[in-house]
This record gives sequence, structure tokens and C-alpha cells, in this order.
Amino acid sequence: MEFDTIAAISTPSGEGAIAIVRLSGPEAIPIADKLFRAPSGKKLATQATHTIHYGHLADPWTEETVEEVMVSFMKAPKTFTREDVIEINCHGGIVSVNRVLELVLRAGARLAEPGEFTKRAFLNGRIDLSQAEAVMDLIRAKTDRAMDVALNQMEGRLSKLIGTLRQALLESIAQMEVNIDYPEYDDVEEMTRPIMLEKAQWVRTEIEKLLQTSSQGKILREGLSTVIVGRPNVGKSSLLNSLVQENKAIVTEIAGTTRDIIEEYVNVRGVPLRLVDTAGIRETEDIVERIGVERSRKVLKEADLILYVLNYAEPLTAEDALLFEAVKGMNYIVVINKTDLPQKIDLDEVKKLAGGKLLVTTSLIEEEGIDQLEKSIADLFFEGEIEAGDMTYVSNARHIALLHQAHQTISDAIAAAEMDVPVDMIQIDVTRTWELLGEIIGDTADDGLLNQLFSQFCLGK
Amino acid sequence: MEFDTIAAISTPSGEGAIAIVRLSGPEAIPIADKLFRAPSGKKLATQATHTIHYGHLADPWTEETVEEVMVSFMKAPKTFTREDVIEINCHGGIVSVNRVLELVLRAGARLAEPGEFTKRAFLNGRIDLSQAEAVMDLIRAKTDRAMDVALNQMEGRLSKLIGTLRQALLESIAQMEVNIDYPEYDDVEEMTRPIMLEKAQWVRTEIEKLLQTSSQGKILREGLSTVIVGRPNVGKSSLLNSLVQENKAIVTEIAGTTRDIIEEYVNVRGVPLRLVDTAGIRETEDIVERIGVERSRKVLKEADLILYVLNYAEPLTAEDALLFEAVKGMNYIVVINKTDLPQKIDLDEVKKLAGGKLLVTTSLIEEEGIDQLEKSIADLFFEGEIEAGDMTYVSNARHIALLHQAHQTISDAIAAAEMDVPVDMIQIDVTRTWELLGEIIGDTADDGLLNQLFSQFCLGK
Repeated sequence: MEFDTIAAISTPSGEGAIAIVRLSGPEAIPIADKLFRAPSGKKLATQATHTIHYGHLADPWTEETVEEVMVSFMKAPKTFTREDVIEINCHGGIVSVNRVLELVLRAGARLAEPGEFTKRAFLNGRIDLSQAEAVMDLIRAKTDRAMDVALNQMEGRLSKLIGTLRQALLESIAQMEVNIDYPEYDDVEEMTRPIMLEKAQWVRTEIEKLLQTSSQGKILREGLSTVIVGRPNVGKSSLLNSLVQENKAIVTEIAGTTRDIIEEYVNVRGVPLRLVDTAGIRETEDIVERIGVERSRKVLKEADLILYVLNYAEPLTAEDALLFEAVKGMNYIVVINKTDLPQKIDLDEVKKLAGGKLLVTTSLIEEEGIDQLEKSIADLFFEGEIEAGDMTYVSNARHIALLHQAHQTISDAIAAAEMDVPVDMIQIDVTRTWELLGEIIGDTADDGLLNQLFSQFCLGK
Repeated sequence: MEFDTIAAISTPSGEGAIAIVRLSGPEAIPIADKLFRAPSGKKLATQATHTIHYGHLADPWTEETVEEVMVSFMKAPKTFTREDVIEINCHGGIVSVNRVLELVLRAGARLAEPGEFTKRAFLNGRIDLSQAEAVMDLIRAKTDRAMDVALNQMEGRLSKLIGTLRQALLESIAQMEVNIDYPEYDDVEEMTRPIMLEKAQWVRTEIEKLLQTSSQGKILREGLSTVIVGRPNVGKSSLLNSLVQENKAIVTEIAGTTRDIIEEYVNVRGVPLRLVDTAGIRETEDIVERIGVERSRKVLKEADLILYVLNYAEPLTAEDALLFEAVKGMNYIVVINKTDLPQKIDLDEVKKLAGGKLLVTTSLIEEEGIDQLEKSIADLFFEGEIEAGDMTYVSNARHIALLHQAHQTISDAIAAAEMDVPVDMIQIDVTRTWELLGEIIGDTADDGLLNQLFSQFCLGK
């Protein structure tokens, strides 16, 4: 496919040592040559591919020097997009990189949309859709495990599995086609129906296996939304600080320009916890009081994990009992803090209220019990399985939804086959399954979906 | 010089398409080869210099794939540091880039200190100290003009000028040396003294020229600290918004992890305004009231520019008069806003109070007068000179201080020469001038100074 030439800043915004402006497309090299001045006077177009060149960028209208740069020159097809790619490495200042971008746009490139480089890699057939999606997951990964999942997916492991399933379905469809075309040969149908059934059942089992990884995969990808609750002064903010310090925060980040949305991620034994409303905890030490009963119920409801902190050195109060009521049916761990002080809490009472939920005792001041708490969190969500490095996880909500649909249609096909429904009716469900699996890797995806997917990417990728 | 091998993340932190881990030093290539797996199996060490290679990084202890990367391979001496340099381009996620950094550190590199790459470029003689400092100025530049100043300095324009001055001084010193060594030849002294004097005077004039650029240079480099004051409801926050929107904010950025320090820079016709306490204005529309009289006097005192906003549609109040009193003797522009409403203010009275300061009328609601205000700001600080692109500006406080000292010592030398002081006495001052100028380019700089200077750099540069 032939496209226009796009350009974008491909490094994170901010001040750094190096920033990169990337160009891709048929005009990438001529545009770069308009601006680039090598000490030797040589044009990039005359250079060998995959080479690096020192020089200056000059404004071609005034010949004024704009920046000192290193230019990476990569000719199609062995590039990220399979098009000619130029990467201009300049000094990592905000003015510097914007000035370089502005210059390449003036020289004829178009500003790339978010994800457009990766979209081209997909449209030019270098990667499939699930691999393209993995590129973004890889960038957004909050833990090593999440990154491994994304890396596996990007390397095509999920694609390969999906490909194998689709191949099996295709073979079934072909065999059914024979039956439909030659209905006079009864024995063909008798012979192929059990084979077809076996294949469909195998596909269903494989889909089920994939779906089993999905809840863990989703947590790895998106993080476990975690809320810390408890009465004032039980040590919520100490718990937060312990978790952050022990595991060092992965991101303390701000989206865009507002400074209100701060999320903290901590990596607890491979489980990414997304600590919700940490600013609230830090500021007031009193999240439940502060945000009001309605709001706090909502926060609790949306959490994947609740850390409910009690004071070891105080008897249970009516408020505690109310909180136990509020978190009923949710995923929570009871943290009984301040074991360095004399016990006043009735542990049997706590156990009764907690109804089988995990209890962990800590003394955050003496740094005791945090290890046990972290182990409990990891166990609760991964039952030790997180160490298995070789699995193909499904982590993407879009993929999970498609797998659920595919599971339904293949189940329908199996049920129909077992009930002696005519083959052409069964074929519809098998074909639909084949299509649904195809959407995962983008084989049967439409433009609207593609645009929507890639628009979630970051700029310059 | 031979050093150990250093590594750091060289792109800004955050999520982006690409991140770079840079290595420099004698072990850069062996370390990269320990980790890098090319599809061809070829080692980097066998490749041509300044080439780019696609492949994977593997943990050499487990052979697990860690990242998909592009590696730029650059052999000494044609590199940023004049050492062997490897740049690993990986996916721009926080986990991804940290994982790559961790791997290269485990494989034998040492984490670089801030500015250490540039320091090596300096210690290995590729650039001098003023050029090294310009690298950082370039990254921190807030406007195009500031970047041009830094770029000029990095290209060595200031260094060259300083070099010429030092050469002249050195020749004088040599001539004086002759006089001291052969005092019996009276005629030599008589001949050389006027020549020496002429050279010293020329040097002094050049230093003065440079110092004349310093106030503009400093503004370009550091921004003009600007405060908007006025009674409540005169339109301070509209003025702020107009300035930011018209010129788009350059930085709304946070250093490190705290979220309290927000500074907004806007680029007004090449003049970088650093808007002070904009959060205060945005939140309360009432900076002077809010921060108290003492504090506000301090803020005013430290400002380079005050924009004093009055209401066109209201008579002057006692409070306005007090504010006029407070800003007396400072750099301020009176902005009379709300000209879309009927006039109630006494303009003659304002002019009297403003005592010759610039007056601009605006209707921010109707977007009128902002152009005029911007022009006034630019005129006030650059009197139109900012367009002169070819000047060598001195912008760095360290350089300015050294130039002031050098101006003093060369003036002392000239005075002494004119007063017939013995040549060896004069020589002391001339030599000191030569040394002071040498400190600018790092010729005579000590380790303490170097460490302190480079520690202000960003990581990875």
C-alpha cells in the first residue's frame, strides 16, 4: 500500500537528553534531505540503509541552522512500518524537538495521528492486529509480568494460536462444503461429521483455556484497582507509604495538563496495584469520611481489591461493623495494624465479621507484617500461578469479548451437530466462529474498528 | 582518557513510543553484545560503525527475551563522548526502559551521573566547558531565540571569541616576559608598552560588548519572571488566559514528583515569560489579597516584569494608589482592561501615577489590545533588537560573573600601565584576566567546579 508521509515526536514529552522525531512514508528521505546538512555534504539518499549520520538541520528557506542532530536512515522494507523511515535524534528540549517537528511538517510531512506508525505496520502486513495492540500494552505495562505478556503477544504467540484454531475451523468448513455440494454421498457426511465435531470440540477447549487466563491477564494489563479503607488513625496512610516505599511506585503520573488525576501504581510481587484516590488518603487520612457515604460506596464497588485497616489497639466500633457491612461480597483483606501496641481488639469478633476473608496483622511502624500482606495479595489473585512464565495470556478486553462470542458460536455448532441438524446450518456457526477469531488478529476487522483502536495509542508510535 | 562504562535512560521519563538507553565507554560494545541477539546471530563488534541493528535483548543468564530493540552502534571517536557509544532504542514504556537499563547495569555498566555523558565529551576534549553548558541550555530553552543563543554557544561561537581574547592577552604576557627577562633593553619596554596597552583596551572593549548582551541573554535563558497584579475582578485571570492561549504555554511541567511547583512559560514574541504563581491567580483571582501584604511585596520585588491591571469601567480606588506605590521603581506595564464597558477611570490620573511607564488598553473579552501589550513587553526588554540573529549572547550567570571579574582585572592592568607601574605588576593582572576568561571555557576549571556544574544536568545527557 502507498500512503503519504507522516511525522511525529516519538519520545515522551518533557526535558531529556535526547528526543526523536520520526518520519515514515515515501517522502521521508527526500524531506530529510531537504533539511539535513552533513559535514561531508552527502545526501542521505546516497547512503546505505540502517546507518547513522551526524549533521545539522537547516531551514531550507533561510539556510539558518535549526539543530544539531543524528539522523537514522532506514530504507523500506526492513523498518517498523515497512516504509522508508527517518529518525531524527535531537536535543531533548521542548523547544528543540518542536522546532524539528515543525520543520519537517513545513518540508512536506503530515503530522501523524496517534498510533499511525503502528497502524501502517499493520496495514502493510508486518504485524497483525493483536500484535499491534500488544505494542501499546507493552508501552503501558506496569509490571515485568505485564510486559512479558505483551511481549509474547507482540511476538505473535497469541496470533499463532488463533491461527491454528482458525485453520482447524477452515478445514471443518471445507469438509462441510463437500457434504453440501455432494449430498448424494451419504457416507461422506457420516464420515466427516464426527471429525468435524472433534475439531470443533478441540477449538472450544482451547478457547476455554484462553478465557481462563483472561482475568489474570486483565489484571496484569490494567492493574488491580485498590482502595484502602478504615476509620481515621488506623494507619491507612502508613500502609500506603509502606506499599509505595517497599515496592517503589511505578508511575506517579499526570495525564495531560490537569494536576488532579494522580494514580499511583505499585508492583506487589508482579501484581500491579492501582492505588485509587491516594491523594485523598495522603491529605486527610480519612477517605471514607471525606468523600461521603454515597461516593465511598461507589469507590468500594469499583475496586478490585479493598484493604480494610483496623486498629489492633482499639476495640471494634459501630463504624467498623458498618464498614464490614459495606464491603460484604467484595474482594478484601483485613489488615489489623498497630500490633506494637497492647491488644484491645477482639480478634474472634473480627474473624466472625470477616467471614473467612484473609486476615493479616501488621505493625507498620516497626515494619512488620508487610511481607505477609503482599504475599496474601499475590495469592488472592494468582494462587502462585503468576510465576508460570510461558503461558499465553489473553489480557485485552476486546479479545476477551470476542473469545466469549466465539465460545458461544462454537458451542452452538457442537450442540447442533450432536442433534443431527443439517450440515449447512452448522456451517453458519462454524464460519461465524472463524470470523470472530479473525477479528482478534484483524483479519476481518473494519475501518471503524481500526480507527478507534489506533486512536488509543500514544503519539509517535 | 580512559573511563569506566556508563549507562542511563536518555529520553524523558513517561510513556512514549520510543525510549533510549545510552551506554558510553570501553565496555559499551562488549556489554551490548552480551545482551543483544540479532536474527542473523552477528555480534555488534563485527559490524561497521554508525549502523543500526534490529534484534532482541535477552537476559544472558536465562536467555529469556527482555525486549525487542533497535541498537545504534557507534565506535569512538566520532561520537558524542568520543568513546564507544551504544544506544538501545526500546519501546517507550516505563517498565520496558527500566528493564533494559537494569539489564545493562547487571551486564557491567555503571549508572551514569547527571551530565556525565556531556562531562566526558568535555574531558575527552570534544567540546569546551561553555559548549557543554550550552548543551543543557539548549535542552532547557523556552523559546526559539533562547535556543538559538544556546545553539550558537554550543557550536563554539562564544568559545572562539573568548579564545581570541585570551590569545591577545597571551601575546601581551609574552611581550612583558621579554621585558622582565631583559630589563637592560629599555627600548623594548618602550616599544611594547603601548602595544600591550592597545591589546588590553581592545580586550576590555570586547568584554564590555559581551556584558552588554548579558541582561538580554539572561532573560532569554531563564525567562522573565512575570507577576500579574491588580484588584479583584479587573481581569487578571483573563489576562493570564489570553497570554497562555495566544502564545500557547511552553511548559506546564513538574520537576520530579511533587505537584506543587507549577510554572507556566509563555513565549511572547521571543521573550519567555515565566508566569509566577499562576495557580494562585487561577484559583482565587486575587493574588495580592490572598498571599498577604508582606508576601506579595516579596513576589513583586523578585519579578522582572509586573503587569498591573486596572479596570477601565471603574474609578481609581485607594487600593490602586497603594499598588502604584508598591510597584514604584520596578519594571511594570499598566494594563487598563474592559474598554468594552463605559469609561469611568480617570486616564490622566493613571498617567500621573504611572509616571511615564507604559500604558496599554485592552478588552480581553473582545480580544482587543493583546497584540499591543505583547509588543510593549518585547519592546521593553529588547527594544527591537531581539531580531538580530547573529549576536553572541552571554546568558549564563557563571559566565557573566567571570566576565565582570575579568573586566575588573583588565581595567586594573590598563590603569597600572597608564600610571607607569612596573611591567611585572601589570603582568599579574593580565595573567589573572587570561585565567578568568579560561574558566569560562573550562581551561582553568577545577574538579569541584566541574562536578557542581555537571550535576545540574539532566540524567542521560
